[in-house]
Amino acid sequence: MNGAESLVRTLVRGGVDVCFTNPGTSEMHFVAALDKVDGMNCLLCLFEGVVTGAADGYARMAGKPASTLLHLGPGLGNAVANLHNARKADTPMINIVGEHATYHIEHDAPLTADIEGIARPVSHWVKTSRDSRTVAADAAEAIATASAPPGQIATLILPANTAWEDSDGPAEVPAIPRRATIADDAIIAAARVLRSGEPTVLMLAGQALYEGTLNLAGCIAAKTGAGLISQGANARLQRGAGRVAVNRIPFSVDQALEVLAPYRNIILVGAKPPVAFFAYPGKPSRLEAEGCRIHRLCELGEDAEDALARLAEAVGAKPGDAQVQQAFRPDLPKGALTAETIAAVLGNVLPEGAIIADESVSVGRGFFPMTAGTPPHDWLNNMGGSIGLGMPLATGAAVACPDRKVICLEGDGSGMYTLQALWTQARANLDVTTVVLANRSYAILRGELTRVGAENPGRKALDMLDLSRPNLDWVQMANGMGVEAVRVDDCEGFYKAMVAGLAVKGPYLVEVVM
Amino acid sequence: MNGAESLVRTLVRGGVDVCFTNPGTSEMHFVAALDKVDGMNCLLCLFEGVVTGAADGYARMAGKPASTLLHLGPGLGNAVANLHNARKADTPMINIVGEHATYHIEHDAPLTADIEGIARPVSHWVKTSRDSRTVAADAAEAIATASAPPGQIATLILPANTAWEDSDGPAEVPAIPRRATIADDAIIAAARVLRSGEPTVLMLAGQALYEGTLNLAGCIAAKTGAGLISQGANARLQRGAGRVAVNRIPFSVDQALEVLAPYRNIILVGAKPPVAFFAYPGKPSRLEAEGCRIHRLCELGEDAEDALARLAEAVGAKPGDAQVQQAFRPDLPKGALTAETIAAVLGNVLPEGAIIADESVSVGRGFFPMTAGTPPHDWLNNMGGSIGLGMPLATGAAVACPDRKVICLEGDGSGMYTLQALWTQARANLDVTTVVLANRSYAILRGELTRVGAENPGRKALDMLDLSRPNLDWVQMANGMGVEAVRVDDCEGFYKAMVAGLAVKGPYLVEVVM
Repeated sequence: MNGAESLVRTLVRGGVDVCFTNPGTSEMHFVAALDKVDGMNCLLCLFEGVVTGAADGYARMAGKPASTLLHLGPGLGNAVANLHNARKADTPMINIVGEHATYHIEHDAPLTADIEGIARPVSHWVKTSRDSRTVAADAAEAIATASAPPGQIATLILPANTAWEDSDGPAEVPAIPRRATIADDAIIAAARVLRSGEPTVLMLAGQALYEGTLNLAGCIAAKTGAGLISQGANARLQRGAGRVAVNRIPFSVDQALEVLAPYRNIILVGAKPPVAFFAYPGKPSRLEAEGCRIHRLCELGEDAEDALARLAEAVGAKPGDAQVQQAFRPDLPKGALTAETIAAVLGNVLPEGAIIADESVSVGRGFFPMTAGTPPHDWLNNMGGSIGLGMPLATGAAVACPDRKVICLEGDGSGMYTLQALWTQARANLDVTTVVLANRSYAILRGELTRVGAENPGRKALDMLDLSRPNLDWVQMANGMGVEAVRVDDCEGFYKAMVAGLAVKGPYLVEVVM
Repeated sequence: MNGAESLVRTLVRGGVDVCFTNPGTSEMHFVAALDKVDGMNCLLCLFEGVVTGAADGYARMAGKPASTLLHLGPGLGNAVANLHNARKADTPMINIVGEHATYHIEHDAPLTADIEGIARPVSHWVKTSRDSRTVAADAAEAIATASAPPGQIATLILPANTAWEDSDGPAEVPAIPRRATIADDAIIAAARVLRSGEPTVLMLAGQALYEGTLNLAGCIAAKTGAGLISQGANARLQRGAGRVAVNRIPFSVDQALEVLAPYRNIILVGAKPPVAFFAYPGKPSRLEAEGCRIHRLCELGEDAEDALARLAEAVGAKPGDAQVQQAFRPDLPKGALTAETIAAVLGNVLPEGAIIADESVSVGRGFFPMTAGTPPHDWLNNMGGSIGLGMPLATGAAVACPDRKVICLEGDGSGMYTLQALWTQARANLDVTTVVLANRSYAILRGELTRVGAENPGRKALDMLDLSRPNLDWVQMANGMGVEAVRVDDCEGFYKAMVAGLAVKGPYLVEVVM
């Protein structure tokens, strides 16, 4: 058995049974090993940003890492932006990056690059296998590292000769560390704050946004009068009718300051202290009110469920105390498509169990209220702010959950970064309805240009923010990649298209012209 | 004047008057400055791989660097693969990468990343401006660094507050170092080798492949019986009727060994010693014959024209000695489209002054003989081997040379990496005819799978190399980005489509189904 086969067998043995891939020559033995080894589901993506974005979406929904297969330094380079996003979402992921044969590197062939250097800024762990007989053990270490809570990016670099030379077979995967249980001190301190009568908000992230844990937070809130809030973006928020509702800190600094103004205490449950997405002249970086104290109940990788259960007990909150979201569907709107009417249509159509891959950027900031009362669903955001995650994320989520409908809410500017994801959706017949919000501009930047204090922009500047001349035709582009698509320009059309798209068991795209 | 304006004014003063851009919030002051400052031609690209690939194509044809504008670490990440290609082509380039305001970085906002770490593997020079009053001087240093022969990648990181705070105005750009003249020793040594009577080949790269310099090499070859050859890929080769013909070292290791087998001496004129693109089990990394001696006439950044002129004199070669390529057009083929018939059609249609951006990968390896006798043209290759350069490269070349026809020869697999380039071609009405060679597979990898010794690949492996199910429809994708397109499946159709496309003054795409 060669090194590549020992690697694939180790991955499968370690429960890593999905590989998103865009291979090249240096990865051909890995590809060949896929034929020999049962149990690895491989999905070809036509660009590496799709590979890592899909691995992110998969892991968020499957609760375990996918592997990726990338071609040398530049292939990894193309994957960097969505690795950045995955790292910010604390997603577990195992990247296998091909490298030239060890003895070939010194000759500086065209594709020779500093792969470790490219990997390091977006990986928690980077290792180059030096010998075909250590590849399996290296892979086992990668699995354990990636899976360590809350999740890490492990990048294993595989020189071609370590793939084609002999191995000693697959390796055992060490036990994955469990989430640490927090000490009593943190519970006592948080309970004291909650009992103080001072306005307090629990700021939740990660595992704390999953239904059961969130319900514990809801019980605490009901008992103590504390607020609940999440960061501006969440890796996976379980929401909808019957669940505890949590709002996000707004993107706009002024709105965020207003939302957090009442609170004298913020208790972090896996979250980071609240911070502005960007800096603006004359505005603060931190979003809490002056004098507000920041407390930490638990880190993102610690056991938030246990921590909140103990905190609930400490404050005397009981199961069932939590206020949960009532079911409702908004009135079906008519006429022009705006951020508000689009939200209302979505509130009418989101099916039970939907997974929302949300990269709606400027248009989607107000989607939460109108969709709050729809049947239970998962809502996934871009945590790293690098656009081009939405369609890949949806792709991976659909691979993880083939029996659920994935709905991708995608800006047109963002979608153009990784539109190749549509082809993978078509090939694997993934059940994704993509909604492209076609405002034909980087709309967020028009606001930002004003916000940073750049006055009276002229045509030359505005042209850099504008996606028209020519307009993008998403129906043609989707069809060109084998995905059925339709264009709509009013609420009635959008509603009809969504009903049609959701009825299809496979990919479908709706271009919403605003 | 703020830092951003001082930066733009310094760039324009330094002759850097084109900016390929995909900006974000942190770059809004730079965008605003574009309105105020005359003389900077800005082109919006919808993905950063297009930005840097276009800057590469521009610089190869303009002979000076373009600037790029990239959004923070992930935007730079998306640009990495084509920066790798540009670095391998020794292309001058100035990247301006936005960064959070200096005081905001410590808060680890979503887009915070190790920008210097991402830049370093693909840059010769990386600097973060620390103060709005040093931005202009930093930009001047970037211009000088990028322009140092043969060309370098300079990456300037611009924290948002250094863009919006006050500056002292633009800076003077220091003189660009001239190409160094080589010492007499190297001339004498090379002349001795050429006079030895041993089989010798001049291996040419960079400036040595420009018409005038190449002619000097041709004179030397004619006088001494030496061969002429180039690396497998060239940044810019001036070829066609009336010019000295140079063939490339073949991609296949066996063929390359055969081509170089006769030579006892290789004289490097800017080139690197010949090396295999990839390592294969049982095959060598270096391509020269055993016992062949490698001599170096000059480095890539040294003055090859002067070196070859002096060498010609030393061996007694006279101007006019060179054998030049006869003009010819091949017979117009009929019927099925194959690598050979496609080459013959191209040999019939290439217009005078054409710029060929060649990312034809497996299909195009044999395009040279049939196109050798067409009118004088420039042929640009991918020097870094990271696919996804072709269409951006064509885009940039067309910006540099608005009066010449650019022909992009693009593999379908490669083209999918950066297809967003078509939109920029449409917006700027760039005169590019794109030929997509649609073999509907990563055909190169089918060969490679066998070549690395992976036997009898099964469906699961082959699916990773196959671009069908569904087929890509390049006509729809191009139309979706505003580019007129046509699909052809025989020689007659291809010829007609090329004639039509070349008659259009603007972008046009021909999908060649093989």
